[in-house]
Amino acid sequence: MKKPLILVSNDDGINSPGLYALTMAAKQVADVVVVAPDREQSAVGHSLTINQPLRVTKFTKNGEFLGYAVNGTPADCVKIALTSLLDRTPDLVISGINHGQNTAVNILYSGTVSASTEGMLFGINSIAFSVCSHSWDLEMDTASEYALQIIKKALNQKFPARTYLNVNIPAIPSNEMKGIKLTQVGSGYWKDFYEKRKDPFNKEYYWFSGEYFESENELINDDIAVKNGYVAITPIKYQLTNFDSFDKFKYFE
Amino acid sequence: MKKPLILVSNDDGINSPGLYALTMAAKQVADVVVVAPDREQSAVGHSLTINQPLRVTKFTKNGEFLGYAVNGTPADCVKIALTSLLDRTPDLVISGINHGQNTAVNILYSGTVSASTEGMLFGINSIAFSVCSHSWDLEMDTASEYALQIIKKALNQKFPARTYLNVNIPAIPSNEMKGIKLTQVGSGYWKDFYEKRKDPFNKEYYWFSGEYFESENELINDDIAVKNGYVAITPIKYQLTNFDSFDKFKYFE
Repeated sequence: MKKPLILVSNDDGINSPGLYALTMAAKQVADVVVVAPDREQSAVGHSLTINQPLRVTKFTKNGEFLGYAVNGTPADCVKIALTSLLDRTPDLVISGINHGQNTAVNILYSGTVSASTEGMLFGINSIAFSVCSHSWDLEMDTASEYALQIIKKALNQKFPARTYLNVNIPAIPSNEMKGIKLTQVGSGYWKDFYEKRKDPFNKEYYWFSGEYFESENELINDDIAVKNGYVAITPIKYQLTNFDSFDKFKYFE
Repeated sequence: MKKPLILVSNDDGINSPGLYALTMAAKQVADVVVVAPDREQSAVGHSLTINQPLRVTKFTKNGEFLGYAVNGTPADCVKIALTSLLDRTPDLVISGINHGQNTAVNILYSGTVSASTEGMLFGINSIAFSVCSHSWDLEMDTASEYALQIIKKALNQKFPARTYLNVNIPAIPSNEMKGIKLTQVGSGYWKDFYEKRKDPFNKEYYWFSGEYFESENELINDDIAVKNGYVAITPIKYQLTNFDSFDKFKYFE
C-alpha cells in the first residue's frame, strides 16, 4: 500500500528549524515533499506573485535534499506544488512550524496560515502549525510531538468542507503541557504605532511596531488557551458575507 | 461645521486613474487625504511590511499635490495614515477604484480589499471599490458617480460592528446600469496553472495563470450581479471560526 503524501510549506523560509522539525515529524508517517519560500516571508498575508516569474530550485540541508525553494510567497508555493510539482494529490497540506504564534487577528497577516488556506481551496485537509516563540533556537521536540499526533489523526479523517485547522503550540516543556483544546479565533488585537527615525542622510523613515492586547480571558480563545499551556486547534472557515447586516444596509439599494 | 474627512488608498498605486477618480469624487463632499502605495501592489493580500522601514513622500499629479506615496502595501498605507499621518480620525476609509473586479475568492488576494479591512479593524466605516475592467483607459465617470452616491450614504451611517463593504461596479455606460444590489461573496474560483518557460539562458521559470469559473448563476452572488449590470455591494465580516465543526473535530481533544 502506498504511503500517504504530505506537502509541507511555511513562511519563515525553507531553511527554518521549524520547517525542518515538521518535515522530520511528517516523514515518520508519510512521503513528504517540501515546497517553501527561499527566504523569510512573514506577514505576507495571502499574497500571490503575479507580476514576475517564479523559480524553483532544489534545496539541500545537512548534506541531504530537503525540498524545493521558490522565490515567492507561501500561497505561491502551495499553488505551484499542487499544480506543477507533485505527481499526485497530497493527503494533507501542512505549514510551519512557524516561529511565533498565529492567534487572533494575526491570522489575517500570517503567511503560514495562508499556505493552509490554499490547501483548503484545493479541497485538501490542511493545517497551519505555529509555536509560541520567535526563537530559532527553541528546542522543537515537544512541538514536533504534538504536530505528529495531530497529523496522524488528520490523515485518517476528511475535514468538513472548506475548513482547515490553525494550530498554536505553547513553547513549554512536554510535562507542563495541559492538553489539546478546540478554540476560536480570539478577539486580541494590536495597537499599532510607527517609530519615526532619521537615516544617516537626515531623511525620515518609519518602523512599524505595536502592542498586543490579548482576548478576553476565556480558554475558548486561541491566545488564552496557549497562554495557559494548551495546544490550541482552531477550525477556520471563510464565512465572509455578513448576512445579518443586509437589513441594515437596505438604504443602499 | 467641519467637513467630514475621508482617507483614500488603493493597491494599483498612487498614480492610477482609478484612485484619482475616487479622490475627485470624495472631494465633492469631504476633505480628502490620499495615502497610497508608490507602485502597483496587486494580489498582495493582507501583507504588512515589517522587515524594512517605510518612506512617505509627497506625490504630485497634474501639477497639484495629490497625496502621500508609501513604499509599502495597502495595509501599510492605512495603518501609517491612521497612526502617524492624519491629525484626526477620518469618517470613512475608501480604497480603489481598483482596475479589475474583486469578487468571490479574489477578495482573499486583493490589496484593495485589505485596505478596507484595516480601516474596519480601526473601527472606521470602510469601503473597497473596484470596477470590472483592467483597462487604465476606461472612462471613469459612471464608476465615480456610483462611488460618490455610496460615499454620501456611508458618511451618514454607522456600519454594523466589524463590517465593511466590498463594492464592484460593472464597466458599462450609466444608462445600461440596472441599479445597486446587496450581494454575497460568490463561490467563483480559479483553476490555477503555471506556464513553464525557459529564459534566454535555458533556465526554467514559471508564470502564474488561471481560468476563472464563476459562481452559481444567482444575482445574490457578487460576480453574477456585476455580470448582469448591477453594482454589487457585499457586506464583509471576518467570521472565521467554524463553530459547527467543533463536534466533528472532537477527536483531537
